[in-house]
Amino acid sequence: IFEVKWAAEQAEKGGYDHFMLKEIHEQPKALRDTLSGRIEADNSRVNLEEVTITPEEIKGLKKIFITACGTAYHAGLVGKYIIEKLVRLPVEVDIASEFRYRQPIIEPGTLVVIISQSGETADTLAALREAKRQGARIVAVTNVVGSSVAREADDVIYTWAGPEIAVASTKAYTTQLVSMYLLALHLAGLRGTLAPEKISELLAEMKTLDEKTQEILNDSQVIRDFAREIANSDDLFYLGRGLDYSVAMEGSLKLKEISYIHAEAYAAGELKHGTLALIEEDTPVVALVTQETLFEKMVSNIQEVNARGAAVLTLAMEGLKEVEKVSRKVVYIPRTYEVLAPILTVVPLQLLAYHTAVARNCDVDKPRNLAKSVTVE
Amino acid sequence: IFEVKWAAEQAEKGGYDHFMLKEIHEQPKALRDTLSGRIEADNSRVNLEEVTITPEEIKGLKKIFITACGTAYHAGLVGKYIIEKLVRLPVEVDIASEFRYRQPIIEPGTLVVIISQSGETADTLAALREAKRQGARIVAVTNVVGSSVAREADDVIYTWAGPEIAVASTKAYTTQLVSMYLLALHLAGLRGTLAPEKISELLAEMKTLDEKTQEILNDSQVIRDFAREIANSDDLFYLGRGLDYSVAMEGSLKLKEISYIHAEAYAAGELKHGTLALIEEDTPVVALVTQETLFEKMVSNIQEVNARGAAVLTLAMEGLKEVEKVSRKVVYIPRTYEVLAPILTVVPLQLLAYHTAVARNCDVDKPRNLAKSVTVE
Repeated sequence: IFEVKWAAEQAEKGGYDHFMLKEIHEQPKALRDTLSGRIEADNSRVNLEEVTITPEEIKGLKKIFITACGTAYHAGLVGKYIIEKLVRLPVEVDIASEFRYRQPIIEPGTLVVIISQSGETADTLAALREAKRQGARIVAVTNVVGSSVAREADDVIYTWAGPEIAVASTKAYTTQLVSMYLLALHLAGLRGTLAPEKISELLAEMKTLDEKTQEILNDSQVIRDFAREIANSDDLFYLGRGLDYSVAMEGSLKLKEISYIHAEAYAAGELKHGTLALIEEDTPVVALVTQETLFEKMVSNIQEVNARGAAVLTLAMEGLKEVEKVSRKVVYIPRTYEVLAPILTVVPLQLLAYHTAVARNCDVDKPRNLAKSVTVE
Repeated sequence: IFEVKWAAEQAEKGGYDHFMLKEIHEQPKALRDTLSGRIEADNSRVNLEEVTITPEEIKGLKKIFITACGTAYHAGLVGKYIIEKLVRLPVEVDIASEFRYRQPIIEPGTLVVIISQSGETADTLAALREAKRQGARIVAVTNVVGSSVAREADDVIYTWAGPEIAVASTKAYTTQLVSMYLLALHLAGLRGTLAPEKISELLAEMKTLDEKTQEILNDSQVIRDFAREIANSDDLFYLGRGLDYSVAMEGSLKLKEISYIHAEAYAAGELKHGTLALIEEDTPVVALVTQETLFEKMVSNIQEVNARGAAVLTLAMEGLKEVEKVSRKVVYIPRTYEVLAPILTVVPLQLLAYHTAVARNCDVDKPRNLAKSVTVE
């Protein structure tokens, strides 16, 4: 009987040792599925029929709130950055358990974007209801058809990631990011904040991210080596600026939840305001450098921790070779537009968390104390 | 020669072992000095003559940005909460090193509040200049007369904390909080968002905070005991919701910068989304419970970590005795209005950081790797 059960489980895991690893590897497909039918064949525009807000209403938008918990909150942070950059609309991102109790100021012309993989997260659902009560228009981003969040929102953008079994979210996050990009480019097109050629370029590039993700998955040796090195560490710091900071937060959460290493992410510019005191000889640090405009600032931050003996793994955009001078190890992500980098950058961080947890003999798919969906407060 | 030097240094420290402890104890006076002349004798209104924005301009305000680094950023987080609550104006708080590079959306009617103890923080000054370039009106909150930030802002609210020598900021933070309250109540009065009696009550109460701070300073035994207990810990978690979360972040930074313990603050509602995995038998946790409206939620969060064996020190508002059932130790702060609690709550956290650092034989006033003012990027 045991053998049969094992075989069945293995089959479900598609030959992978854990659901998490399987789900990490399903990301190219999840990206394709989530984009499918949502970009015009000639890349001229986003086709988000499920968002029924009229072009007039979109032009009248004054503000966007994004509200979520955990990993979905980190997807929201990326959403804020790109919507503000591409649409020039103010966006406020809130942890759902904070949003619902802080009497948020919701004025006319406010769109509230609710992100939840399960669509059943208790605080997120309560935040949705509070926003609705105050008259906001709600767009939900969720992975589960017919979930509470999907039912109660005005519109739903489904992430077609497929069932996510591992507690630590991976493919749900990357497809939530895709939804953020689709929404941003949809709004940018209708509000005219981005030139049509620029929109086409970004949409065309988005269609290549599945292959670029596959490239990262095919070559993970440096990450595996670093995972073995940090397996006995008690602490790890992630550093980034701008979009890289948002991804650093997600990378840090992944490591924390499945390996139980105390990982923490910092806006790199904040280092000197406190955290630098924690950096000693061989303290592991993961630095993210994908934004060329912030490149020099990040190199200087890496130098600061490097000078204190930190063991730095840098994740950089292909071509930014100068980081090698200040890092012990470097992983390059395939070249893409800066704004799209998060979808790729997070993948090595997911793998790092996974391989570290395996090296520590942790129960990767079912970390202690955590549930897949937090359906109670 | 050594003895003379020692005597001179001791004299400067006013009999305290470290500047930091001296400065913690100077807070009652710093609060009084910062309030001095700024509240009408009959508590009818704030008297902030240095803020020259006209009542018409104040009525026309659409948004406030608060921008700062490190501890001052944490004061800004409290500022956001109270301004949104009392003035119902949307506030966005930004880390200065992020703000300056992210092309923030600054529309007409935007007030930018810049907070910096030294007035020379490089990123904060750059953020001020960027905001000014975009046409925003600037109010600076700083402790140093004639500093760069003071010179370049349109208006300055000085925190009369006196010179702060220790690298870890204490009295600068609490007086920055006072400035946030004065600004919030000034705006609330002129925009009519708060009843005059309510304003009077809060202003009268603010005048009592020096004595209440003194009460906390006079009775720090529980904190000293807890400091000894955690002196050998590698990690510590701070939990809070709403205003308590902002103060938890400041408490965590204090401990981190001078004791080198990896402390991290969480919005308590986020626990189940990852961090709970890090809680084991005897993991020290500091829980903040001063907001009655969030009381039950916090007790339930404390129970969660308690059930995993965490060693919980709870800081609660006087009267919330139920926390004793779920905590190993409890420190009460004197009763005050919920919105004013941060000024008191942070004091035991400062003492906790101080006594822990002393127990670990750390160089309290000059922690490794850190400078008092970060005047380079």
